[in-house]
Amino acid sequence: MATRRFEAADPDVAALYDKLSETSVQPLWELTGLLTPQPAVRAVPYRWAGKELRELGARAGELVPVDRGGDRRVLACCNPGLDGAPYAVSTLWAAVQYLRGFEVAPAHRHTPAALRFIVEGEGVWTLVDGDPLHMGTGDLVLTPSWTFHEHHNPTADPMIWMDVLDLPIVAALDAVFFEPGPSEQARRATAPRSSSEAWFAGGSGLVPVDGPDLPARRSPLLAYRWAETERALEGQLSVRDGGHARLRYSDPVRGGDVMPTMRCEMERLRPGTTTATVRQTGGQVACVLHGTGRIEVGSGESAEVFDVEPGDIVAIPSWAPRKVRAETQLDLFSTSDAPVLEALGLFRTETTATPASLTA
Amino acid sequence: MATRRFEAADPDVAALYDKLSETSVQPLWELTGLLTPQPAVRAVPYRWAGKELRELGARAGELVPVDRGGDRRVLACCNPGLDGAPYAVSTLWAAVQYLRGFEVAPAHRHTPAALRFIVEGEGVWTLVDGDPLHMGTGDLVLTPSWTFHEHHNPTADPMIWMDVLDLPIVAALDAVFFEPGPSEQARRATAPRSSSEAWFAGGSGLVPVDGPDLPARRSPLLAYRWAETERALEGQLSVRDGGHARLRYSDPVRGGDVMPTMRCEMERLRPGTTTATVRQTGGQVACVLHGTGRIEVGSGESAEVFDVEPGDIVAIPSWAPRKVRAETQLDLFSTSDAPVLEALGLFRTETTATPASLTA
Amino acid sequence: MATRRFEAADPDVAALYDKLSETSVQPLWELTGLLTPQPAVRAVPYRWAGKELRELGARAGELVPVDRGGDRRVLACCNPGLDGAPYAVSTLWAAVQYLRGFEVAPAHRHTPAALRFIVEGEGVWTLVDGDPLHMGTGDLVLTPSWTFHEHHNPTADPMIWMDVLDLPIVAALDAVFFEPGPSEQARRATAPRSSSEAWFAGGSGLVPVDGPDLPARRSPLLAYRWAETERALEGQLSVRDGGHARLRYSDPVRGGDVMPTMRCEMERLRPGTTTATVRQTGGQVACVLHGTGRIEVGSGESAEVFDVEPGDIVAIPSWAPRKVRAETQLDLFSTSDAPVLEALGLFRTETTATPASLTA
Amino acid sequence: MATRRFEAADPDVAALYDKLSETSVQPLWELTGLLTPQPAVRAVPYRWAGKELRELGARAGELVPVDRGGDRRVLACCNPGLDGAPYAVSTLWAAVQYLRGFEVAPAHRHTPAALRFIVEGEGVWTLVDGDPLHMGTGDLVLTPSWTFHEHHNPTADPMIWMDVLDLPIVAALDAVFFEPGPSEQARRATAPRSSSEAWFAGGSGLVPVDGPDLPARRSPLLAYRWAETERALEGQLSVRDGGHARLRYSDPVRGGDVMPTMRCEMERLRPGTTTATVRQTGGQVACVLHGTGRIEVGSGESAEVFDVEPGDIVAIPSWAPRKVRAETQLDLFSTSDAPVLEALGLFRTETTATPASLTA
Repeated sequence: MATRRFEAADPDVAALYDKLSETSVQPLWELTGLLTPQPAVRAVPYRWAGKELRELGARAGELVPVDRGGDRRVLACCNPGLDGAPYAVSTLWAAVQYLRGFEVAPAHRHTPAALRFIVEGEGVWTLVDGDPLHMGTGDLVLTPSWTFHEHHNPTADPMIWMDVLDLPIVAALDAVFFEPGPSEQARRATAPRSSSEAWFAGGSGLVPVDGPDLPARRSPLLAYRWAETERALEGQLSVRDGGHARLRYSDPVRGGDVMPTMRCEMERLRPGTTTATVRQTGGQVACVLHGTGRIEVGSGESAEVFDVEPGDIVAIPSWAPRKVRAETQLDLFSTSDAPVLEALGLFRTETTATPASLTA
Repeated sequence: MATRRFEAADPDVAALYDKLSETSVQPLWELTGLLTPQPAVRAVPYRWAGKELRELGARAGELVPVDRGGDRRVLACCNPGLDGAPYAVSTLWAAVQYLRGFEVAPAHRHTPAALRFIVEGEGVWTLVDGDPLHMGTGDLVLTPSWTFHEHHNPTADPMIWMDVLDLPIVAALDAVFFEPGPSEQARRATAPRSSSEAWFAGGSGLVPVDGPDLPARRSPLLAYRWAETERALEGQLSVRDGGHARLRYSDPVRGGDVMPTMRCEMERLRPGTTTATVRQTGGQVACVLHGTGRIEVGSGESAEVFDVEPGDIVAIPSWAPRKVRAETQLDLFSTSDAPVLEALGLFRTETTATPASLTA
Repeated sequence: MATRRFEAADPDVAALYDKLSETSVQPLWELTGLLTPQPAVRAVPYRWAGKELRELGARAGELVPVDRGGDRRVLACCNPGLDGAPYAVSTLWAAVQYLRGFEVAPAHRHTPAALRFIVEGEGVWTLVDGDPLHMGTGDLVLTPSWTFHEHHNPTADPMIWMDVLDLPIVAALDAVFFEPGPSEQARRATAPRSSSEAWFAGGSGLVPVDGPDLPARRSPLLAYRWAETERALEGQLSVRDGGHARLRYSDPVRGGDVMPTMRCEMERLRPGTTTATVRQTGGQVACVLHGTGRIEVGSGESAEVFDVEPGDIVAIPSWAPRKVRAETQLDLFSTSDAPVLEALGLFRTETTATPASLTA
Repeated sequence: MATRRFEAADPDVAALYDKLSETSVQPLWELTGLLTPQPAVRAVPYRWAGKELRELGARAGELVPVDRGGDRRVLACCNPGLDGAPYAVSTLWAAVQYLRGFEVAPAHRHTPAALRFIVEGEGVWTLVDGDPLHMGTGDLVLTPSWTFHEHHNPTADPMIWMDVLDLPIVAALDAVFFEPGPSEQARRATAPRSSSEAWFAGGSGLVPVDGPDLPARRSPLLAYRWAETERALEGQLSVRDGGHARLRYSDPVRGGDVMPTMRCEMERLRPGTTTATVRQTGGQVACVLHGTGRIEVGSGESAEVFDVEPGDIVAIPSWAPRKVRAETQLDLFSTSDAPVLEALGLFRTETTATPASLTA
């Protein structure tokens, strides 16, 4: 801190500033932008096109071996507002991962938690602490904090999926730990059904009495299957008006979010349906599973309107209004850091007026 | 309290006893049986045969109109140890209810909570606060505390099922309230699926985001279907050794028991399987859904061995060891007051040695 | 069950009743009083005069050794409505215990929890799991479920205090266990301050970081001292209108009631102040610490008005309206089973109109 | 994102990198330092001398008006490892605030929560939502998230104290909101005792029954007084070995940390006492209240040994071992982000071997 950070015309104040600088102290009255009326969000609304991500993934598959750095072939979505940081929004990493036929990505674990959401394809297995989870279209697969996880593809066909991690949060808290797996080579286990699902996917409200110990602060269920998710959406649509169903993935035994840092939800909108315009503190990442439509994010000058199709990934920064309109029937997965903001008493949500652009 | 309750040889003590009696006071040193080394349980192990209950229900159906007293045709299982009190164990009412074809039982509500478990048959509808729940074999249907409930049978065939209520507990706490329904005549509503299930039976860990308000301290899901229960049992059996699966019915949104006073569980035992011998504080009522086997309850002189078949209802008093052996594949529903004992810090459980009678 | 319980004029019904009786089954339609519009409470409003209890205690002290039956010299308040059961209300045992100078009451433990409230005097020590707690005027001392407890009086003077236990609840749940202490002879330990208080009575919101393990479901603090209680009452009176302060004794580390079965509260009313008329489900026992006043309990025919003075114990049955008026400044301790009713979803409270008798 | 971020020798890969760059995507295999074996902490162990902070505060008081920018005269401790960010550790803002005699700092509120800890002096009043809290030596005063707060000094003497805020966390979550107070001029209210304390500082486990509504997720008690804190420390020392007492400030009604983002603790070490060497995830800020001693922070090359005296502020970065040795009796306040890490399942703690440097 040898260089003085602040300038002052008054020589006495200038001398004080010198002294402050030597002492590693800064005067609050010279600092700006610390306490803003509303969040000063650097991340911007953004959309990564699924089509492009698939092409880039395939091209990376041709050119880059899976084991080059980190044992994963991953392309990270980088929000243009974040000065090159490889994050989709300030608090969430989003990426696509591409595994060629017969490839493996060996085991490791880290304190940042991850989720995998599959837009298209099937056939890869993710092992979480050794439990083999098949990955198929529309499935949500969890690899919670500090669980060993590895992927292997016993088929000839490549597969691509979306990864979301809470890495920016864990990094901001100086709490990143990483450990390579016990084996250099990924295991190749498969199973008709994962142990996690055999125990904990018995159906709504049906839980084992003397099953495995429950992990702290996260769901013991590691895969949520599309067939069941779709049934739940249709069940909800059968009793509610408006053509918009919305469900949350949760811990089937104790309730609450699947992981303490990421909320996961799925929405289905009937063709022509529009959601309310809602904003909330904290960042969100959405991914289109089925259908086409329009997602409007932000307001005023920073507003963006994205025409979306399957595989598109959309960044919704903190406090940016979000509105969705379905052209065809639209299934939209989204994840957010809302559990963090709720736990810290910082979660705010606001339903705003409908923007004219989408009411026509 | 004019009469003296205790006698004493010493005239001074006798005079004191007179005075105590006048003052509505009793000397602890003359009282016995208050603090016993182990629970002094009056209820005894008992079995009501399903075959007899069905016959008695049918006969009552011929002779007694449904609206005669309480608007219900109910036969209460009375534990012989309870001096004529109409309770299966000290803390639980268990009964069979019989509804003839085209009969109705109009709405009322009460603070005691009830559950219905159906061993055989289908076709009756139970409406809970107006939501129509179909009743079929193996289903568990809840009518929680202070919810209006009514039954109607749109078919020509009679139907019988088991009711269990926490009435003795609520009565012991002087907290029984009752209110007849808003209409004298039961409604006749049916529905492809109850609203409760459309919202809350979407599948393990799939919960609505903006659905109905959750009721305090009990599950929002009012019916647990046998098809799903059986799938959960088979799922569990696919990953555990020993041929004995055991699941608990729970609140699908927040976890925990379905109601604050009654725990509900279902077990499946493969043929030839025997459970551990376990005792717990608080009473239990078990009901055989499918299969045959042997239930041993109690120890020493008070031990009973019941050969059971579908429809049999068995009373397991507090702290009586319980052991089950399946002859054919056995599905056994049971309910207990365990949530009450847990909430009050009084729940104890103990796995005891296997009684010789069942080890052969 | 050889004798038929119900009579019927119709011979077919009579035959059915015979058969039911043989099968240990009762017809609901012949049972009355099970589901009443409001609680059918047998306990009545009652007051035991402190003056009489002290005299009876002293007389028992002269005539009855402390070790005669149960190792305690205790006089139980028996509600006249409860047919001789030694309970103050349906769910609570209340009594006075009398210990002469130099007497001891050796250790035992039981699942029913107890509290001690001291109206007058000091000098006896209660040891809870070996931790010596001094007893003085206005103190509340807890001996929670299954803790060893013993009393000894190192002074020459006798001492009397009120005991309240949740015995009726624990007995109704068939969960009474009892165990005599490890030593036949009570220990004689004293201490400047109990270990419980040194760790957990540090002041509002000041809790140890690495102290003793916290016991499940009850306060780790075993004594609440009058000096502190009075300061809290005066603090509250300094910022509220109406001359009526009311505080609850709670777990200082985790919040919530001191024990899972008994809520403890202290009220101070300035001279001339009257409380609202409130009724709640579940029973209460009140005890006057200081001052004189009038307590009205019940409504209609069963209403009672008690002019009270220090040491008086008053039974307030479930759902009976309760109103207190202070003549001089009144300090009133009360305990209830409210935590039980709350945990089971059965707690109701209602503020009713002010009875004319107290408005003058 | 016009400039390509990564270089590649292979022209095909180079072309892919161009394409990735255009699409706002980055290849994971080129990123380093994301998942480190242990936290990659930029903040370093650091100590700001109390003597210097007091001098700088006084000099700022002479030269800079209180209303210049932000209405506060605050000097922020800037950790030298954080590239000029005005934070003491990655997650906590720490500063000294200086108020001259008769000065006022008018009301505002913000979502970042603050605490004030006073090392020396008294006389300033902090109003929290209008409730006047006196500030004196050793007191902890809270201004929780989104509460209006203002300071006024009715005395002729200046006063200085330490502020700690969770600002870096709230900013990282894009959840900073700020609002100026309803009046331009600070109110000048004082009171014998704050309303917060009158209601909630009644003593350990003594809580109001029908007091003010409890705020969500934080303590209703806003000031913790040194006299009570010291009594609690001495109480603990009376029953534990080792001469080291440690207590946590907590919500007196519901338990848990005083605020969801900052844990507050006070330790007293008898002269010559040394603590264990402990590290934990997340940052800490310590402040010496009384006494002298030595604080060792970090290990290996980054280890620092600080000889401390009253007013010194010490930064303990995430995962840096911390050890304290008292020369004279030492009272040490500390605050950390531990509640955040606990809520997110990221809290780890480890007791390491005693560094040789302090064992002599």
